[in-house]
Amino acid sequence: MMKLRLFTPGPTMVSPEALLAMAQPLDHHRTAGFRETLKECVDLLAYVIGTKTRPLVLTGSGTQAMESAIIGCCKKDAQTLVCHAGKFGERWRDILKVYGIPHIEYQQDYGVGFKAAAVAAKFKENPGIKSVIFVHSETSACSISEAEGIAKVCRDNDALCLVDGITAIGTIPFKMDEWGIDIAVTGSQKALMLPPGLGICAVSDRAWKVIDSHQAPAYYNDLKKYRKSMEGNDTPYTPNNQMVSGLKYTLTQIKEQGIENVWARTALLAKGTRAAVVALGLKVFAKDPVDSVTGVLLPDSVDEGKLRKTLRSKYGIHCAGGQGHLKGKIIRLNHMGYVDAVDTVGAIAALEWALAEQGYKFEMGAGTGAFGKVIAAG
Amino acid sequence: MMKLRLFTPGPTMVSPEALLAMAQPLDHHRTAGFRETLKECVDLLAYVIGTKTRPLVLTGSGTQAMESAIIGCCKKDAQTLVCHAGKFGERWRDILKVYGIPHIEYQQDYGVGFKAAAVAAKFKENPGIKSVIFVHSETSACSISEAEGIAKVCRDNDALCLVDGITAIGTIPFKMDEWGIDIAVTGSQKALMLPPGLGICAVSDRAWKVIDSHQAPAYYNDLKKYRKSMEGNDTPYTPNNQMVSGLKYTLTQIKEQGIENVWARTALLAKGTRAAVVALGLKVFAKDPVDSVTGVLLPDSVDEGKLRKTLRSKYGIHCAGGQGHLKGKIIRLNHMGYVDAVDTVGAIAALEWALAEQGYKFEMGAGTGAFGKVIAAG
Repeated sequence: MMKLRLFTPGPTMVSPEALLAMAQPLDHHRTAGFRETLKECVDLLAYVIGTKTRPLVLTGSGTQAMESAIIGCCKKDAQTLVCHAGKFGERWRDILKVYGIPHIEYQQDYGVGFKAAAVAAKFKENPGIKSVIFVHSETSACSISEAEGIAKVCRDNDALCLVDGITAIGTIPFKMDEWGIDIAVTGSQKALMLPPGLGICAVSDRAWKVIDSHQAPAYYNDLKKYRKSMEGNDTPYTPNNQMVSGLKYTLTQIKEQGIENVWARTALLAKGTRAAVVALGLKVFAKDPVDSVTGVLLPDSVDEGKLRKTLRSKYGIHCAGGQGHLKGKIIRLNHMGYVDAVDTVGAIAALEWALAEQGYKFEMGAGTGAFGKVIAAG
Repeated sequence: MMKLRLFTPGPTMVSPEALLAMAQPLDHHRTAGFRETLKECVDLLAYVIGTKTRPLVLTGSGTQAMESAIIGCCKKDAQTLVCHAGKFGERWRDILKVYGIPHIEYQQDYGVGFKAAAVAAKFKENPGIKSVIFVHSETSACSISEAEGIAKVCRDNDALCLVDGITAIGTIPFKMDEWGIDIAVTGSQKALMLPPGLGICAVSDRAWKVIDSHQAPAYYNDLKKYRKSMEGNDTPYTPNNQMVSGLKYTLTQIKEQGIENVWARTALLAKGTRAAVVALGLKVFAKDPVDSVTGVLLPDSVDEGKLRKTLRSKYGIHCAGGQGHLKGKIIRLNHMGYVDAVDTVGAIAALEWALAEQGYKFEMGAGTGAFGKVIAAG
């Protein structure tokens, strides 16, 4: 009877309806039916990402999709600027290292977002930069970077702009074409409300020019093969067609709701949660907090491991801990995808109960009350 | 009301039970529960593959798993022998090309299997060969190669033996450790009776020595990362945990049935189908036919496209056509996984009806009768 509620910033909760869409009898993927489903998914993905390009659907994780983009766009005879202030930014730096792609690291503390002006300064210092990689919503540090501004700086400097949008797309305002983003990557297990298993990669015409100018140093991750197959609404290798069925369902839900409304709902949940955190006398982690996930900085008196264990075992609330040097210091509460105000107020209430169990002093109901005021004000 | 029966050699049919196992509420993957499920899957995979090693579970396709193995085991300072007589062997050759790995091609006609003695001769001609790649069951050409014998030749010549076992493992006798295979790869959508989306790669100690001797030219596909995480029954990147739940279900079914009984059932279905093909006055494609899939060579008077269309639209039987130069000339009927004698006799009957529709002359019931005799004799 324990009801489990995933408050982790991926995998996020999957609706019973989406699970049942994926439980339908499986058809073959080389059929008119699958091609039609894939085409609809690509149309809907283009809507969610804000692009007229045809996003590519890869069977794998977000990491794999990002790797495909990096090895296609970041050439060995050019310089890449990689911005990192968290675990995922560090991962993209590691990919550049493995492939021996020349790069400049722009590192900041966890929780600090990247600003357009500072990226512009990096271009002045290093005029050879041909591509920039950054994480729009850095899940590990709960922070946001200036995607629109950085994209403009890249355009102004004739460099490609590669965005890890894994916890941004479908969560916070994201307008690939309008902002001039060249690569937009996401995964199925975040705002797309599905299990992990699909990676999405949208590619601008500018990026295709670079990708087409050389042979990517990989086979499965060569984006050119996906583009070619996509012309016939097909995939170069056997796709996870079960998940593509689920994707059609969840993307249709997003379209019906309207992407702006999804962004607004996510922002409201995040705003309410931040208010609750403050009302409980705790601090919001991240100097530049993002709306996809809220980081809660715990006082030394609270045992993070014990807190999360109580939340899960007693109340069915599974939230994430910190990563890297933030391990043991923060918990993270998700606002992406199939989660609403009632779920979230429940998580805040459970957080209060678990904090009380550890003797932390606060007024019971202060968090849920503060959250409620934000929701009521809409 | 149209009942669809997938007779394609992957994706194969998925049982409602497996679909419902995957439709259970989704949990997070960094939990004791997931680690326990993954551990059970790895134990069961080791049983199915015939190994004491700990098979790695990758989120992606069989191609991706095979690519991971190739770039780990086939070094740029050594020579690889790649045997190809079909689309999948050609794919592994293409991967070697993309990565600039020195290789010798051993090409045969579609339908012809690779023999141990001939591979031994290749070693005599080229003493520098350090690894051999071949496809145990070449789905595109419906043929089988001598896995046990080729593995022994590799051992005798101190070379690694990399086997594409994607339509062999869980289908035909496969004994990784006993035969001395170094890399055994499979995917979820064949004998493992699941949708596409997981790749499996088992690695021998000999292979790990080579993999450990250099940095693989990739990030997501670096097997060392999977081994390290697997020590704690974990994965380096977010896994498709929905499919791992399904995998536990289907592998448990295989274990309960006994892998030898699965092999025997597959062999009987293939034997019966071959008998039916002959009784219908048709020819079995492949000089060295494999039991995972039967290729049926059509006479010129029969229109392959029309035949398959009739089979699917009128009778719900979806079988595969030919690939490469076999397109339009053969159809292929699957015997892997969740398919039994009743399904298969139905497919043969439907084939008779569709042949009759095109005016092909034969005695109605000759195919189902011949199939029945094989099944009755057990």
